[in-house]
Amino acid sequence: MTRTELFHRIKAKQSFLCVGLDVDPAKMPAHLNGDVLAFNKAIIDATRDLCVAYKPNTAFYEALGLDGMRILKDTLDYIGDDHFTIADAKRGDIGNTSRYYANFAFHTLGADSITVAPYMGEDSVRPFLEYEGKWAIVLALTSNQGSQDFQHASQDGGEPLYKKVMQRTAAWGNLDQLMFVCGATQAEKFAELRAVTPDHFYLVPGIGAQGGDLAGVCKYGMNDHCGLLVNSSRGILYASPGEDFAEAARASAQRLQTQMAAALKKYLPTKA
Amino acid sequence: MTRTELFHRIKAKQSFLCVGLDVDPAKMPAHLNGDVLAFNKAIIDATRDLCVAYKPNTAFYEALGLDGMRILKDTLDYIGDDHFTIADAKRGDIGNTSRYYANFAFHTLGADSITVAPYMGEDSVRPFLEYEGKWAIVLALTSNQGSQDFQHASQDGGEPLYKKVMQRTAAWGNLDQLMFVCGATQAEKFAELRAVTPDHFYLVPGIGAQGGDLAGVCKYGMNDHCGLLVNSSRGILYASPGEDFAEAARASAQRLQTQMAAALKKYLPTKA
Repeated sequence: MTRTELFHRIKAKQSFLCVGLDVDPAKMPAHLNGDVLAFNKAIIDATRDLCVAYKPNTAFYEALGLDGMRILKDTLDYIGDDHFTIADAKRGDIGNTSRYYANFAFHTLGADSITVAPYMGEDSVRPFLEYEGKWAIVLALTSNQGSQDFQHASQDGGEPLYKKVMQRTAAWGNLDQLMFVCGATQAEKFAELRAVTPDHFYLVPGIGAQGGDLAGVCKYGMNDHCGLLVNSSRGILYASPGEDFAEAARASAQRLQTQMAAALKKYLPTKA
Repeated sequence: MTRTELFHRIKAKQSFLCVGLDVDPAKMPAHLNGDVLAFNKAIIDATRDLCVAYKPNTAFYEALGLDGMRILKDTLDYIGDDHFTIADAKRGDIGNTSRYYANFAFHTLGADSITVAPYMGEDSVRPFLEYEGKWAIVLALTSNQGSQDFQHASQDGGEPLYKKVMQRTAAWGNLDQLMFVCGATQAEKFAELRAVTPDHFYLVPGIGAQGGDLAGVCKYGMNDHCGLLVNSSRGILYASPGEDFAEAARASAQRLQTQMAAALKKYLPTKA
């Protein structure tokens, strides 16, 4: 999927919502008896028209045991080709090894993209940029408390690490294969981020359970292709613990989609 | 396994060799018909008395398809409890998620340790330090070319990132649960690293195929508990492409063990 195709879908749905499929069987409604695939299918059916992307985090599927990756693959197959899919795996290793991770995410699982940790530098990221139509989504500024530990320090007396990661990485790929993870808990930071990478798409976690502010993210972060995929996981998946979980998930996704439609109208009145 | 127990095994075997089980079916001897578990068992049988640790990289098992993690689990079971096992996975996510990765590595797979990427900071690392007898091995200075991109820059006018990672992380765990990855391609750097973390164990990749220098690493990196696990993967696994692959692997491991025994005698004459 290209950047332009992704923007077309955002316009068509008036939504840049990504639903995070971070499924914990202990939080699923009791009547499903721990059937993660059934839960995922119900959530997908309930939200399909309201979102443009799905993001399963691989950790939650590893937690299901040795067959977890099979459930993840079945989930991605069920989503199909009309949505942008993100294997949220935060991988990164020496080039020879990153190649295997890329192959697993893009071919074995069939995801459109994978999240990538930048610590090991260029040869750890480049293998994810060698697949036609596939994307690497590189961690820049994350939404957790620990983002304070290393990401904000000035590098050689200049920019903070998260900006240096964006600057360097942007040179390794183009706008149709490279996004950045930018946490939503610091909406005012988005103006700074846009000064570094004005045209890239950002994957924005941290809305909802982590306290992020959707309006602020749109105000400071939207570009002329929208440029945002805003993720919500727990706020949608666990909107109700009962048999009405899918309807509640839909209502929660609908609230976000309504806000997103308003933001598109406000910031991109002629384009979206 | 504690640090002291690990040192006991190093003394008993006169070896601090870690065998990297990064198995690529395309490089295995043809007569094995792609049977990775059979290959691993033969390599383990041929090297068991010469090494103290085994390090399968999870990327190579993902590359085997959806049953790859089962082959990894069977490999770890075959190794048993007499060796220190490392799931080389380079994981790291927000705390809620890292917990699932830790559970998979330590409980589902049964590994003694996992490698961890530090970019997301404290709450991404701490969940790996909450398991009795288990270890987090945090990336500090890696052995690849890309280590130049981010790891060496001065942080807020002070130390380079790889030293800051060591300093910060060392405060989150103790010597019985925390190691660092320090690449062997820059042996002279080990004196600097030891100034920051004199007592920790280091996992040292980059010997052999990546060009690292074992003698230099020992000279600058050994501490009074040895403090080194030196990994070799390709140089052992693919020492011969023929039916004698296991004997050739043993000969390759034996050469390293002989050098390691000499280094222990030279640098720890009374203790090891």
